[in-house]
Amino acid sequence: MEFFGIDISLANIMETVVPAVLKIGLLILAFIILLPIGKKIIEKAINKAGSNQKISPSRVKTLEKLLLNVFSYVMIFVLVLMMFGVLGIPLGPLLAGAGIIGLAIGFGAQGLVSDIVTGFFILLERQLEIDDYVTTAGYDGIVEEIGLRTSKIRSFNGTLNYVPNRYIEGVANHTRGNMRALVDISIRYNENIDEAITILEQVCAAFKDDERFKEGPDAIGVQSLGSSDVVLRVVGQTENGLQWECERAMRKQIKEAFDHAGIETPFPQQVTVHNK
Amino acid sequence: MEFFGIDISLANIMETVVPAVLKIGLLILAFIILLPIGKKIIEKAINKAGSNQKISPSRVKTLEKLLLNVFSYVMIFVLVLMMFGVLGIPLGPLLAGAGIIGLAIGFGAQGLVSDIVTGFFILLERQLEIDDYVTTAGYDGIVEEIGLRTSKIRSFNGTLNYVPNRYIEGVANHTRGNMRALVDISIRYNENIDEAITILEQVCAAFKDDERFKEGPDAIGVQSLGSSDVVLRVVGQTENGLQWECERAMRKQIKEAFDHAGIETPFPQQVTVHNK
Amino acid sequence: MEFFGIDISLANIMETVVPAVLKIGLLILAFIILLPIGKKIIEKAINKAGSNQKISPSRVKTLEKLLLNVFSYVMIFVLVLMMFGVLGIPLGPLLAGAGIIGLAIGFGAQGLVSDIVTGFFILLERQLEIDDYVTTAGYDGIVEEIGLRTSKIRSFNGTLNYVPNRYIEGVANHTRGNMRALVDISIRYNENIDEAITILEQVCAAFKDDERFKEGPDAIGVQSLGSSDVVLRVVGQTENGLQWECERAMRKQIKEAFDHAGIETPFPQQVTVHNK
Amino acid sequence: MEFFGIDISLANIMETVVPAVLKIGLLILAFIILLPIGKKIIEKAINKAGSNQKISPSRVKTLEKLLLNVFSYVMIFVLVLMMFGVLGIPLGPLLAGAGIIGLAIGFGAQGLVSDIVTGFFILLERQLEIDDYVTTAGYDGIVEEIGLRTSKIRSFNGTLNYVPNRYIEGVANHTRGNMRALVDISIRYNENIDEAITILEQVCAAFKDDERFKEGPDAIGVQSLGSSDVVLRVVGQTENGLQWECERAMRKQIKEAFDHAGIETPFPQQVTVHNK
Amino acid sequence: MEFFGIDISLANIMETVVPAVLKIGLLILAFIILLPIGKKIIEKAINKAGSNQKISPSRVKTLEKLLLNVFSYVMIFVLVLMMFGVLGIPLGPLLAGAGIIGLAIGFGAQGLVSDIVTGFFILLERQLEIDDYVTTAGYDGIVEEIGLRTSKIRSFNGTLNYVPNRYIEGVANHTRGNMRALVDISIRYNENIDEAITILEQVCAAFKDDERFKEGPDAIGVQSLGSSDVVLRVVGQTENGLQWECERAMRKQIKEAFDHAGIETPFPQQVTVHNK
Amino acid sequence: MEFFGIDISLANIMETVVPAVLKIGLLILAFIILLPIGKKIIEKAINKAGSNQKISPSRVKTLEKLLLNVFSYVMIFVLVLMMFGVLGIPLGPLLAGAGIIGLAIGFGAQGLVSDIVTGFFILLERQLEIDDYVTTAGYDGIVEEIGLRTSKIRSFNGTLNYVPNRYIEGVANHTRGNMRALVDISIRYNENIDEAITILEQVCAAFKDDERFKEGPDAIGVQSLGSSDVVLRVVGQTENGLQWECERAMRKQIKEAFDHAGIETPFPQQVTVHNK
Amino acid sequence: MEFFGIDISLANIMETVVPAVLKIGLLILAFIILLPIGKKIIEKAINKAGSNQKISPSRVKTLEKLLLNVFSYVMIFVLVLMMFGVLGIPLGPLLAGAGIIGLAIGFGAQGLVSDIVTGFFILLERQLEIDDYVTTAGYDGIVEEIGLRTSKIRSFNGTLNYVPNRYIEGVANHTRGNMRALVDISIRYNENIDEAITILEQVCAAFKDDERFKEGPDAIGVQSLGSSDVVLRVVGQTENGLQWECERAMRKQIKEAFDHAGIETPFPQQVTVHNK
Repeated sequence: MEFFGIDISLANIMETVVPAVLKIGLLILAFIILLPIGKKIIEKAINKAGSNQKISPSRVKTLEKLLLNVFSYVMIFVLVLMMFGVLGIPLGPLLAGAGIIGLAIGFGAQGLVSDIVTGFFILLERQLEIDDYVTTAGYDGIVEEIGLRTSKIRSFNGTLNYVPNRYIEGVANHTRGNMRALVDISIRYNENIDEAITILEQVCAAFKDDERFKEGPDAIGVQSLGSSDVVLRVVGQTENGLQWECERAMRKQIKEAFDHAGIETPFPQQVTVHNK
Repeated sequence: MEFFGIDISLANIMETVVPAVLKIGLLILAFIILLPIGKKIIEKAINKAGSNQKISPSRVKTLEKLLLNVFSYVMIFVLVLMMFGVLGIPLGPLLAGAGIIGLAIGFGAQGLVSDIVTGFFILLERQLEIDDYVTTAGYDGIVEEIGLRTSKIRSFNGTLNYVPNRYIEGVANHTRGNMRALVDISIRYNENIDEAITILEQVCAAFKDDERFKEGPDAIGVQSLGSSDVVLRVVGQTENGLQWECERAMRKQIKEAFDHAGIETPFPQQVTVHNK
Repeated sequence: MEFFGIDISLANIMETVVPAVLKIGLLILAFIILLPIGKKIIEKAINKAGSNQKISPSRVKTLEKLLLNVFSYVMIFVLVLMMFGVLGIPLGPLLAGAGIIGLAIGFGAQGLVSDIVTGFFILLERQLEIDDYVTTAGYDGIVEEIGLRTSKIRSFNGTLNYVPNRYIEGVANHTRGNMRALVDISIRYNENIDEAITILEQVCAAFKDDERFKEGPDAIGVQSLGSSDVVLRVVGQTENGLQWECERAMRKQIKEAFDHAGIETPFPQQVTVHNK
Repeated sequence: MEFFGIDISLANIMETVVPAVLKIGLLILAFIILLPIGKKIIEKAINKAGSNQKISPSRVKTLEKLLLNVFSYVMIFVLVLMMFGVLGIPLGPLLAGAGIIGLAIGFGAQGLVSDIVTGFFILLERQLEIDDYVTTAGYDGIVEEIGLRTSKIRSFNGTLNYVPNRYIEGVANHTRGNMRALVDISIRYNENIDEAITILEQVCAAFKDDERFKEGPDAIGVQSLGSSDVVLRVVGQTENGLQWECERAMRKQIKEAFDHAGIETPFPQQVTVHNK
Repeated sequence: MEFFGIDISLANIMETVVPAVLKIGLLILAFIILLPIGKKIIEKAINKAGSNQKISPSRVKTLEKLLLNVFSYVMIFVLVLMMFGVLGIPLGPLLAGAGIIGLAIGFGAQGLVSDIVTGFFILLERQLEIDDYVTTAGYDGIVEEIGLRTSKIRSFNGTLNYVPNRYIEGVANHTRGNMRALVDISIRYNENIDEAITILEQVCAAFKDDERFKEGPDAIGVQSLGSSDVVLRVVGQTENGLQWECERAMRKQIKEAFDHAGIETPFPQQVTVHNK
Repeated sequence: MEFFGIDISLANIMETVVPAVLKIGLLILAFIILLPIGKKIIEKAINKAGSNQKISPSRVKTLEKLLLNVFSYVMIFVLVLMMFGVLGIPLGPLLAGAGIIGLAIGFGAQGLVSDIVTGFFILLERQLEIDDYVTTAGYDGIVEEIGLRTSKIRSFNGTLNYVPNRYIEGVANHTRGNMRALVDISIRYNENIDEAITILEQVCAAFKDDERFKEGPDAIGVQSLGSSDVVLRVVGQTENGLQWECERAMRKQIKEAFDHAGIETPFPQQVTVHNK
Repeated sequence: MEFFGIDISLANIMETVVPAVLKIGLLILAFIILLPIGKKIIEKAINKAGSNQKISPSRVKTLEKLLLNVFSYVMIFVLVLMMFGVLGIPLGPLLAGAGIIGLAIGFGAQGLVSDIVTGFFILLERQLEIDDYVTTAGYDGIVEEIGLRTSKIRSFNGTLNYVPNRYIEGVANHTRGNMRALVDISIRYNENIDEAITILEQVCAAFKDDERFKEGPDAIGVQSLGSSDVVLRVVGQTENGLQWECERAMRKQIKEAFDHAGIETPFPQQVTVHNK
């Protein structure tokens, strides 16, 4: 009973399996011992190199995580090759052949190559760096690790998302430069628009000295004529990461200024015709 | 009447089928006997190894399930090979050939290879571990088993979901670190925002000593100006798995504090103009 | 006029078609006679084997249906081979060749191989068994048969769904362990939450002795603060298949307890401001 | 000027095109004459065979349509082959080659092979039979014909839908066994549930003798607590095809019984708070 | 400087391009002259043949358009071949080779082959004929032309839609037999259902003599119990193309009959509870 | 250090790169000078030819843009070939080989071939012509240019959309013949339908002499029975491009005629039941 | 232990890895030094060339970014080649072979080739230029960089989006010519349409002298008859980028003119029938 040149009779299996298992055990042991040692060395080397302040700490972190990740894969790859050697399976010709198994593996492994190619360019083009806040592949959060094959994104609610790189079809990176804070506020149709805009401009003026704003908020006019309200818009540019905080502050100030001036936000309105 | 070198005349079938069926029966019998014995051995070996406390129990469970799973597939693979041997079908050349059958099998089996490649990396990168609460491939629940080809996820309502690994395109793992509890509460437009936030801060202060919270809940301000309400937001970081419980507790406390202070949650509002 | 080595002149067709048609007729006749006989034998053999009670009756049914299904396909496969033999078409080289026809067939048959590979693993991993209640491939119902190529699912409304196995991308099996019964109940904003929860707990207590519940229903707190109502949630674990019945019973009891205590479920609420 | 071994100079075209056109004309004529004759013979043969009552008439119809369909395709296939013969194009080597044209045809024709493979299994597994009421590939209606390549489905509104078999990814066949009739009825929150269920049970009892019901309709309890209503459900099993008729009858009876008992179906409810 | 055997030095281009351009000009001229002449001949031949009344005029139109379409493509194909001849590009080996260009063309042209294969079967199975009203590939309208590669559908609003045949995945043909006219009419919950159905039956009776109806309209009962209304349904079978006209007529008659009998169509209803 | 026959040692790069860069610079210079000259010549030639009035001006524009487009691509193609010649890279064998690079390019370039094949047929079948108003590939607007690879569509709001031809899966061309103008108008349930239709017919009659209408607008009856209104429909055929203008005019006339006759368009209606 | 001709015994690895690592370190160092120097040179060269004013500054920026981008990729490509040389891996034959690894890489790299092919045509056809405002691939914003493989788009809110070129399936470029400003304004049903249009025309007349408008705004008539309002439309053509500003200005003027004339925008209307 032979298959691909391997004798699979029960007797032979018993005879050859046991020593092979032992050898494999030794290999795994060596692997378990060497992996953390190698990782420690890499970490220290990088941290030393990183203390020469020229590179940003986030770039250092990215590189450290990546090198650890690549080191693990290379170690595992070597381990698997050695195991095949122990088992006496001639991996080279098997892989190089063009039979069904090769075909199936070629198709099946295509995703893996896509992951690595995409991952390589994500790193090269710095699309993602650790601690960036991004939206990609349907996930939204802070990048925790960028690996050759998979990236990790931590959502706001604490969930850790693992995304194979090939599914990263486009990256919306929210940590690349200043952001805009935008507040829409509704007033009634019978309110005086000019007056409301004046008040908005006063509120904006107060924020112009605020350090968080890079380009002071401005009231830019009548955004839309809604079914029950006239919508006015205020827009400003803030430092990265502070846009929500600024929006919340502006919302509070505008509401209080309008309350003070007696300008109300209208509830949805409806005209009722009574047919008694 | 020959096909692929097999004589398929009725007489010959009768002559060769019977002993083959018997041999196959014996093989299956051996398989049925050996499989559970092998599984018992594996289980015991792992549980012994697992009792050396260095590895987390969830990791031990993952490995145990996986090894049992791999062992079953290897046994079945060997069984199938032996059956083909009994039937005298030369599997090797058939598979290695590049005819239509090979082509069709290569394409058809491509999903199987994808499953195994993806499964391998899910395990290696610890994307899933047994007892993790995850969302992936449209399913949501607790991981029960991670196999080479299929993973099992138990939904909250008790359903057991079988997911071939290749459909796991990204994993949202909710069991990796602290989670955030988030409560939005609406107040009326004519309520004093500062007062409401003060009350929220008092409620939050009471929760700050709560062990379940890792980063005490905070009232972060005016989240939005709705059509009938001003929405305030409270956010805190809790231990993993306790976020819903904490949200429920916070909701109850906030509501009672607002009731006490006479701050009401507004119902949807509408202005009605009467045209009699 | 020759095509692929077959003489297609009209005269020759007439000369060779008639006896071929007769032979094919005989083959079909033999097939029609042998098929039901073989099926009967299989059924009896399995039912005898199944009466040794160690295997669950649902597993026996699954195997019976499967064997009948495989037997039919093998018979048809043999029939088709014999027909090609009668017609003198050398099927082997035709299939093994790599011309267009082979290519087209290889691509076209790829779905068939996918069906069989997936079907094999569905059976092996017991993702589906006959009489399981499952949701898969957009269909929802009781499994009636699992074939090598197609599975049959009976919907609640009586429809029988045929699903080629390759479209079974993930299986949500609702017949694997206890299920959860979940009832959400709304109360008004000005109701006392503690009182309502106390009543819910009393109702739950009454159900705790109910045999259908494996883990007594519990009132777990304020699930959400809706626009017109406070939603409370009750959750319990029931025996498989009884979850809907239990939910219906709990809904009725809770409603009656609340009626008795004078706690009303609020209708949607709206504040109307009149602008005459 | 040669292309693929065909002289395409204008003179030569004129010289060889004319007689070829004549021969092709004769071929088409023969085809037009033989096709209906062959069809008549097949129809008569089948109808005779079908009068031996053992096979269901719907199965006979399916077979008749199918054989006519296959006969037409074979005739056209032969016709096309002969035409290529007349034109002197060596079809065999052209198809067997692996150049671009072959590649393009191989890919392009792949859909055709998929159609035939799927069609073959649809027939073999009796997923569709003529006069079945089915939902598949986004169409919904009565099956009128199942061809090797295309199936025809007649919608309720009279539209005839042509569906290439490969798009039939799953079949929901509504003509395989008894169907369920299901009626949901709403009552008010302040109605007595027990009383309403008693009335529903009386209506159901009256239907239990109805021949159309296979498993008498039953009132199964409180299905949901809606925003304005309590929903009760009645379910029964009816003969295939009569489910809509039975639902309509039950709806009418239940409404009249409730009218009689003074139980009203509530309109959507809303609580209005007036802020003058 | 050579590329694919073509000398592309500037001098040589000037020397050989000019005469080639002249020859190509002559070819195009011949093409422009011969094309309309050929088309005229085909049109006349078909119209003569079509006047022998056995074939339906719509079939004649389909054939005419198709032949013109095929004739144009053949002419253009010949023209392109001749041009390549003039330019001295050896098209045969280029196409038959298996290099990148061949690969790219093979893949790219695959859509073209799909179009033609699908188009061939659409014509053969008469899925579309000119003047049919169909819904396919997201377009809805009257078929104006069925070409080998593209079909043209004229929408109701006058838009002409060009659909490559390969996107025709299923055809809903509304011009194949009688159609159903269907009118749903709402009555109030406190209306007498029997009385309303009687009136509907009277209206239906009046239509039964109408020639447009093939199967007189019938009131089939209570279709649904809506939130504010009881919906009754009337259904009838009409001649093809007259279904909308008949529905409009029925709607008008039913409304007038109900007006006369004092049965009103209810507006959406709402119960308002006042909380002053 | 050699790669693909190129010596990539640093020294050699310096030695050979500089002159190559110079030659390439010269090529680009020649290209920049020749391109606009060639374009001018083509434009003049076509405009002269176009002034012989037989061809429609829009066809002339289409051809002009196309020829310029093809000319640019051919020039760039020649430029790139020459550059490869300068660099000494043997492009021919590289492309004809079947290694990985060839494979990757073959797959990657497949979109380009699809673009050109589709573009060719779009032009040949005149699916698009310049100045047509079309909807295709999710864009909606006036065609500005049809290139071999990309078409340009100008949206109503001024946006210019670039669509690679392969994404043009179907074309809805709104500039092919007369268009229909369609106005739906609601009247109240207690209005007299016959009277309203009479008024609509009077309005329609006034439009029948309007030159813009090719087939006078007609009131075709009761289109639907809405929840608060009876909807009547008026339909007419107008000259291409005038349909919106005609609809606006009809809407104004109908509204004024109904105002005059005292027929009101109903607002949404609701019956309110008061539960005090 | 050999694999692909590389001795992977532990001893040998130690012996050869260390010097290789050193060499690679030197290569990377050289790379880090040369890259910024090369970039500086390119930038200066382009800025000098760009100061000859014939080319638009946005085109200069596009070219500068592109050349820097291409330069980086070429440098990295050379670096990687040299590294493989240092490691002694014969890259050429490996890539040219047709084994599994080649197959997998060919498939995996196909995306990369698509990116470059698409990127090339985006640049050639000037679909995107830096500072254009575009919508493509689901992103919306200002183009910041167009690379061979990836383009960068800056959203209005400050997010930087990285889009691999292959996902750019169509480009809607909002910076190609004048844009249209469009304002819809609702009036009541009982308002005089002619009067309202006159007022709109007066407002439009005032804007006609506005420099921002290229084609003065016009009131084009009754756009639709809504459920509670008659919608009138004003449309004008403005300079690119000023359309929103113009819309906001027109909205404010129209509202004030209508306020002055006593024409009100209607709130949603509803007829209420009271059923006490």
